[in-house]
Amino acid sequence: MSFKLLTTNPIRRGVLTLPHGKVQTPFFMPIATRGAVKSLAADDVKKLGAEIILSNTYHLLQRPGLEFLKKHGGLHGFMGWPKPILTDSGGFQVFSLSKYRKITPEGVTFQSEIDGRKIFLSPEKVVDAQFAIGSDIMMVLDVCSPWPCTHKDADEGLNITLDWARRSKVHFDKIVKRKKLTKKNRPLIFGIAQGSLYKDLRKKSIAELTKLGFDGYGIGGVAPKKKITEFVKWCTELLPVDKPRYLMGVGRPEDIVEAVAVGVDMFDCVIPTREARHGSLFIKTSMPKITESVKKLFYTTAHIKKELYTHDMKPLDPHCSCLTCTTTTRSYLRHLFVTREALFMRLASIHNLAFYLNMMRELQTTTMSSRMK
Amino acid sequence: MSFKLLTTNPIRRGVLTLPHGKVQTPFFMPIATRGAVKSLAADDVKKLGAEIILSNTYHLLQRPGLEFLKKHGGLHGFMGWPKPILTDSGGFQVFSLSKYRKITPEGVTFQSEIDGRKIFLSPEKVVDAQFAIGSDIMMVLDVCSPWPCTHKDADEGLNITLDWARRSKVHFDKIVKRKKLTKKNRPLIFGIAQGSLYKDLRKKSIAELTKLGFDGYGIGGVAPKKKITEFVKWCTELLPVDKPRYLMGVGRPEDIVEAVAVGVDMFDCVIPTREARHGSLFIKTSMPKITESVKKLFYTTAHIKKELYTHDMKPLDPHCSCLTCTTTTRSYLRHLFVTREALFMRLASIHNLAFYLNMMRELQTTTMSSRMK
Repeated sequence: MSFKLLTTNPIRRGVLTLPHGKVQTPFFMPIATRGAVKSLAADDVKKLGAEIILSNTYHLLQRPGLEFLKKHGGLHGFMGWPKPILTDSGGFQVFSLSKYRKITPEGVTFQSEIDGRKIFLSPEKVVDAQFAIGSDIMMVLDVCSPWPCTHKDADEGLNITLDWARRSKVHFDKIVKRKKLTKKNRPLIFGIAQGSLYKDLRKKSIAELTKLGFDGYGIGGVAPKKKITEFVKWCTELLPVDKPRYLMGVGRPEDIVEAVAVGVDMFDCVIPTREARHGSLFIKTSMPKITESVKKLFYTTAHIKKELYTHDMKPLDPHCSCLTCTTTTRSYLRHLFVTREALFMRLASIHNLAFYLNMMRELQTTTMSSRMK
Repeated sequence: MSFKLLTTNPIRRGVLTLPHGKVQTPFFMPIATRGAVKSLAADDVKKLGAEIILSNTYHLLQRPGLEFLKKHGGLHGFMGWPKPILTDSGGFQVFSLSKYRKITPEGVTFQSEIDGRKIFLSPEKVVDAQFAIGSDIMMVLDVCSPWPCTHKDADEGLNITLDWARRSKVHFDKIVKRKKLTKKNRPLIFGIAQGSLYKDLRKKSIAELTKLGFDGYGIGGVAPKKKITEFVKWCTELLPVDKPRYLMGVGRPEDIVEAVAVGVDMFDCVIPTREARHGSLFIKTSMPKITESVKKLFYTTAHIKKELYTHDMKPLDPHCSCLTCTTTTRSYLRHLFVTREALFMRLASIHNLAFYLNMMRELQTTTMSSRMK
């Protein structure tokens, strides 16, 4: 594994070499929550040109289960996806999905929303889980503070997060040694900076994590609804230049462009597929301008249900080369949405993901001369 | 247009030439109810090798509407399907879907299940509708008798059906003349034999329809649950040898093989996609033996939800070359079904349709020497 930073001007661009292949940065990861990107086959995701996807430890450990994945050689073979996979630790889902949870210094116990059984996760168990999954990039178990959060609560959560990060790293190193993995074929492990919107806590978080020396750093607990770029910039300036930075769960296209402008390398978000499901489709109107404050959007959102699309026989986005835009019309998409055909979700997800992935490719090929303000 | 019967031994095999292309008989039509085969893109259906699909006049006239289809050049362009389309007349749906309906000699009035508005259909309007859709094969409006049905009721329904068939043919011929369509580029129009399970009524029906001289003949109102082959054989023996015969809405794989054995050329059925939705997947176990009474099934049904598939890493059907069987495993399909991923429906539909279409291709290439009893 290696992260090669090719340039930082006008934006950070690089190549991340992982056990299952190389990935250009900055990149966006489609989300395969339960081992499938919603409504898409692995073949669809490959055709979209995605170089890496994200999956959820929290969901996979419940179904199909870790013993299963261990027995059958991991998630790659199970879902038929040969390229890299990043897995989140489950920290976020434990706090957002489970009705019952109890945090102790040892770990977190939560109740499965599927069958009600209680499941205990420790930092070590989560690392083991991600080895069973066969992740290329593992995220450590963290405490996701609620939103909003007092300084005291955020600090308490952070202290546990930092201790868990240390334990995760120790356990990870032990396994790497036991499995005789080399720098070339071992997965990466990322720490996650927490601390809510308190700068002193974020600073403490990043200082402690970088002392532990992770392969990369997640910036967690940043709500995508807020104006966050300034805050993200403040974090990236503290992070080591030579390691990839991952802004977790963010965001709208303009959030991503702004975050790239302030030095973030990696993204995931449910927005493209969730918006697709609701009939909101992104249409590019101009090249994204790389700036810390996107004042004019470079796309419009087509609410495909609208009357105005009834007779619109144009492709959804005439400049897009995805399956949806090259084989269907706005009118047909509206018809599928209105008649609730399952095909709509697939076609809409394909296009919205193509929009995100094309945007990232444009950012990857940004040169000094093409920088527009 | 032409129907060229190549052989009748051991089964009828032929080629049907239609405005949008040639189709080998016997064939099975995937159903694109509302302008999409459930959960599949036109591209998926092409890759399955389907040469013709079926769509529903009843649904299309409500959404997107006939004025729409007329304006935009028909269903082919709208859904991106370049090959032939057969459309049913809506007769069956009027009787099966609408809560309110009233039949008069003039036509049928029914209440839309979508917005409650009353819609009047006459035989002439249904022919017009199918011209607007751009059908390659049109079915005449008929009265579908309920099941079971007294002789008196069946006869009354049949009399209306026959009068409507005559009016459909007159109206169709008038339009063909007005549009200056030739024998080469005009669509086909099929009559539909009704008469429930009463042989005298079926005989009367077929005698009257053949007098009118249709391009082919549907056998309607045959419940797929019953042991019907003997009855179908009785009908096909009355029908002209040189015209295609279409057993409407039938059936399970063994029903189709038996019907082919007694001289049927065309089929459609919801079974492959409906069973797919419920997690029932067809796996071929032997070559279908062409016989009027299939005593031993040539396939098994995998109920993918079953525990036994949890660790089954084999392709669903190792001998099938569809997307599902070449890129996924039984275990993964079970996982998708159990976690209710939308992708399941697409992968399952692709395989079950591949099973039906492969079965038809095997029947199409049956030779005397390969006939097995």
